[in-house]
This record gives sequence, structure tokens and C-alpha cells, in this order.
Amino acid sequence: MKGYSIGIDIGGTSIKAAAFFGNADRDGLISGEIRRYPTRTADGAAPVREIIERAIDEISRGLPGRMIAIGVGTPGLVDREGNLIGAAVNIPGWDGLPLSRALEERWRVPVSVANDANMTAYGEWRFGAETGSAGDSLVCISLGTGIGGGVVLDGRILVGAGGMAGEIGHVVVEEGGRPCNCGLSGCLERYSSATGIAVSAVRMAPDFDSPLSREIAAGTAGPTAKQVYRALSAGDSLAAAIHRDSSRHLAKAIGVLAQTVNPKVIVIGGGVLEAGDIIIEGIREFLPRFVLPMSLESLNIRRASLGESAGVWGAAAHAWDKNA
Amino acid sequence: MKGYSIGIDIGGTSIKAAAFFGNADRDGLISGEIRRYPTRTADGAAPVREIIERAIDEISRGLPGRMIAIGVGTPGLVDREGNLIGAAVNIPGWDGLPLSRALEERWRVPVSVANDANMTAYGEWRFGAETGSAGDSLVCISLGTGIGGGVVLDGRILVGAGGMAGEIGHVVVEEGGRPCNCGLSGCLERYSSATGIAVSAVRMAPDFDSPLSREIAAGTAGPTAKQVYRALSAGDSLAAAIHRDSSRHLAKAIGVLAQTVNPKVIVIGGGVLEAGDIIIEGIREFLPRFVLPMSLESLNIRRASLGESAGVWGAAAHAWDKNA
Repeated sequence: MKGYSIGIDIGGTSIKAAAFFGNADRDGLISGEIRRYPTRTADGAAPVREIIERAIDEISRGLPGRMIAIGVGTPGLVDREGNLIGAAVNIPGWDGLPLSRALEERWRVPVSVANDANMTAYGEWRFGAETGSAGDSLVCISLGTGIGGGVVLDGRILVGAGGMAGEIGHVVVEEGGRPCNCGLSGCLERYSSATGIAVSAVRMAPDFDSPLSREIAAGTAGPTAKQVYRALSAGDSLAAAIHRDSSRHLAKAIGVLAQTVNPKVIVIGGGVLEAGDIIIEGIREFLPRFVLPMSLESLNIRRASLGESAGVWGAAAHAWDKNA
Repeated sequence: MKGYSIGIDIGGTSIKAAAFFGNADRDGLISGEIRRYPTRTADGAAPVREIIERAIDEISRGLPGRMIAIGVGTPGLVDREGNLIGAAVNIPGWDGLPLSRALEERWRVPVSVANDANMTAYGEWRFGAETGSAGDSLVCISLGTGIGGGVVLDGRILVGAGGMAGEIGHVVVEEGGRPCNCGLSGCLERYSSATGIAVSAVRMAPDFDSPLSREIAAGTAGPTAKQVYRALSAGDSLAAAIHRDSSRHLAKAIGVLAQTVNPKVIVIGGGVLEAGDIIIEGIREFLPRFVLPMSLESLNIRRASLGESAGVWGAAAHAWDKNA
């Protein structure tokens, strides 16, 4: 079928939109323009919807062929029918919004709505180097302010009975550990997200005497995950201990995935990865403690390849693949 | 299509065989005869194959209609093509056996081979009270000598890239804990299988003064999981502590499943369940520590309903559903 799909990715600071020509060759598919619009979440659901509608209008204007579908990645929980069911979102009025139906009525094309981490996983599955074929499976873990996750099995996003599949950030890795916003304690994201790394820095600093620990004591380092990893590259001992702690917890959660979902590829992305390959290397060091020896060798862990555009391309490709 | 499928379940002590008439009504489906043959694993793969072939001959003799497919549940790892790839089996010569092809050549029908825990999960999914429809998902955890597990998503067994999906018994629940045969330490099955419970009894007995601890000290209790649960029903304090420990570890692994796979139903079966509903109740008590509050209420954990015949009916139904 000739035409294109539209992908929308609703992020905390910007809404991204792009058009996807599914008939183009693989490289051509995702080389198009991505438009960005500031999110203005504080004003509630209505302005966010308006931005989405304007974005779709603007990105599709003048394009050859017909718009055949729209895909949207959104924060919060989404049920199997594409309705927003999650409360864990900072957009007032977002919970319960029938976004899928609203966009379908306006554009008269099928709309697929999924959690943004799931659309990101789909983008990495679809355009990654070692996946994208039937039968392939991928788990994507995004290390940002929190930790998001998505599971793609056999080309389909795993949503879960209650829309909670892929919530890897809330796997309890430290029983009775740091309290999490979700109500549990010891969740992975309390240790290995940018926020978790910063907390570790504050907590662990008193036990170290290093440039970073002195900066933290003096109040001249925030600290942030970025500062921790900058210190690590300069050989800081506190930074090394924080990195090991974060890596160990990530490896624990990955072991769980290897023994339950056993995906072909585990992809790690998100802002924390700006620190470089050391994040992947740190995880690998601890995998032998948590992954069955039989699957250790075949376990393929790599850095996300699409970066922050994975979500918008994933949403667009998902809409295309379901409907073209 | 008129006819039947054959299910084979290869267990440590017996090989079970049954015929499945997929066109019968739901209750009728699994009310047929199950034949049992002693396993004789020590003699190697050839006698086991002979028993399977004899079982198929005998169970199908005189049946109305045509045999349309064969399903086999086997210990060990099975790849996505139904070849045996696992070394973790006590049948010499089993590893690498092209069982699927061998049976196909002899009977000229499609043969589906899967790990026995996966076929058990399929049986529970197919014939359980709250699943069996497209979109439904189920995880089955079998507490026996070890801990087996299987994942059924949308009517399909999740095999995993390396055939390792559903290896729930080897989720590390206690970092640096009891060494496991698999090479890891702290695996779930070291704590919550019948074997694990017996080990806990020996290790924890010195800290208690109870009838069970005195029996263990005197060498008059093995101890076995059965003895522990018998003592528990008599109010023994050591037995209560062992039960809590086992339950907590199970809840931890279930939390992991709830946050990654998020199945509709989690079914617990296996010999340990002979102790009764207390096993499920024990798990429920610890779930709030490990399961996201948002999914806690909807998490459906229940006792397996087919018992030890789940594997053979699962194998038969799987063959039917794939081919009829």
C-alpha cells in the first residue's frame, strides 16, 4: 500500500512527530524529519491533545500518498485497547482519556497508542541491527530520570494483562531497600537510574575520600549521574563504587529477564548511556552472578542504536506494521 | 477436522500418553484414559524412544478418526524447532536427539516437542478456569524436586531465544545464596522446591526448639518438605519459619513476573502443593513487598487445576491447536 504513517512521541519536555514511509528501504525509513513541540503538560490534557493534532497536521501537510495510520507513544499505562489507564503521569486529565478514539474520529485512520517505553522498544526492535524479523525478541531498558522498559516478542509489544509488562524499573532488586514512588521498596530505578545514581553518590560519599566525595561534602557537586561518570573517567574511587553498585543491580534485573523472557537482544538506552560503553561493560561484569551459564554466552546486550528518536520511529513503524 | 492428537509426557518415573479429541466439548476433552509406562531413563535414549513409539501405537489403536498430530513434553531444553538441545537431563544420549523428526518419519504427522514445564503451562492455560482464550496469558510454576516454569502468551508457549524462557526456578532471589546445580547461587529452587525446603529445615533447625527441630536433631525426621508441612499443620514454629522463608522467595520471583510479563494468571502446581492452599496463602502474604500496588489487586494467583496430568493434556492440546 502506498502512503505513510505518523508517529507521535509524548515526552516530558517535547512532543515529537515524524512521518514514516513503510515502503522505502530500511535505511530510508527513518531518515526523515522529526518535528518537536514543547510539551506544556502542566496545562492539562487539552493543550497536549491540541499539540498532537497540530503536529499531525503539520507533519502530513504536502506529503505524497495517503496517511494510513497513526501511532502514539505516551507516558503512563495503556491498556490492550489503547486507552490511557495509568495514574503515574504528570499531565492532569490524562488518566482515562480515550486518546485512540479521539484521534481516530478526527483523522479516520487506525490509531495505535502504547506506553512510550514500549514504542521505544518497538523502534529498537524494528530498526536495530540484529532484530526486526519474525521470531526475534527484544527487551529495551531506558536509563533516564526513572527506568522504563519494553518487551517485543515476535514483532508484538507485550502489554500484559494489566498493561504492566516491561515495568523493569520496578523489579525489586534490594529487598527492603530504598523506598520508591510506586509504593514498593528496593526497585531497580532507585539504584540505576540517573536519580538513583545521584542518591547513591550522596549516601556513599561519607565512606570515601576522593575528589568527588570532597566535592559532594563541600556542596560543589550536585551530585548528578553526569558528574559521577565524569569523575569515574578521571579514576575517582567513589564514582567507581557507585558505578559497580548500579551495574550489579542492572545485571540482577537482566538475569531475571534472561531466565523468564529469554530475549534475543537486550538493548540499554536513555540519558545515562551518554557516559558511554562503560555502562554496558559494567553490566557485563556482573552477569555471571545472575544469568544461567547456558545462556550467558548467547545473551546479547548492547547499546540502543536510535537514541532519543527510537520512540517516535517506533510509534510510526508500529502503526504502519499493524495497518499497512 | 475429525480426528485426535496424541500427547506424550516424559517424566522421571513414568511416560504418560493420552489421546485428545479436540472436537469434543471442553470437559470431554481431557476425561480420557492416560496410559503410564515406566521410564527407564538409565538405559539411554533408545529405550525411551521405543517406549514412546509403543505408547503412541497402543493409545491410538482402535480410536475413531485419524491421528492428526503428536505433542511431546520432555525434560531438558528444546529449541524453537523442537530439537532437544539441553544437557540438563538424566537420559544418556537425549541431548541433540532429533526427536521431532524421528516421530514425524514414523507416523507422518506433525510433531510438536517442547519442554515438559512448558507443556504443563500450556495444559493449565488451555483447560484452566480463567484462561484458554486468545489474549490470555499464564505463567505456571511447578514446585517439585526442582522448580519448573512455563509462560503461555496469547495461546503460544514462550520458548525464548535460547530455549530458556520460563526458567523461573533459576531466578536469583538471594544474591550470593545457596549454590545451585546450574552454576549460579541463590536460585529460587534452592529455597522453595521440595529439596530447598528440606535444606532450609536442616539449616534452620538449630535456631529453634520445636518438635520438628528435635526430630531433625535426633535424626528421626529426614527432613522432607512433606514432614515440614505436616509439622506446620500441627503448629510447629520451625516449620512456620521455613514456610515463611519459602513463601517470601516465591513472592519475590512472582513480583518479577508481574513487573515483566504481567500475566493474567499465575498458577502454582507440583508435589509441594499437596500441602494444600497454605502454599498459595503464604505467597499472597508477601506479595505486597514485591508486586506493584497497581497490579496487586488484579494479580490472579491460584493452584494448578490439572495436577500431574497437565503435561500430557497440554502436549496433546498443543499438537491439536497447532495442526487441527
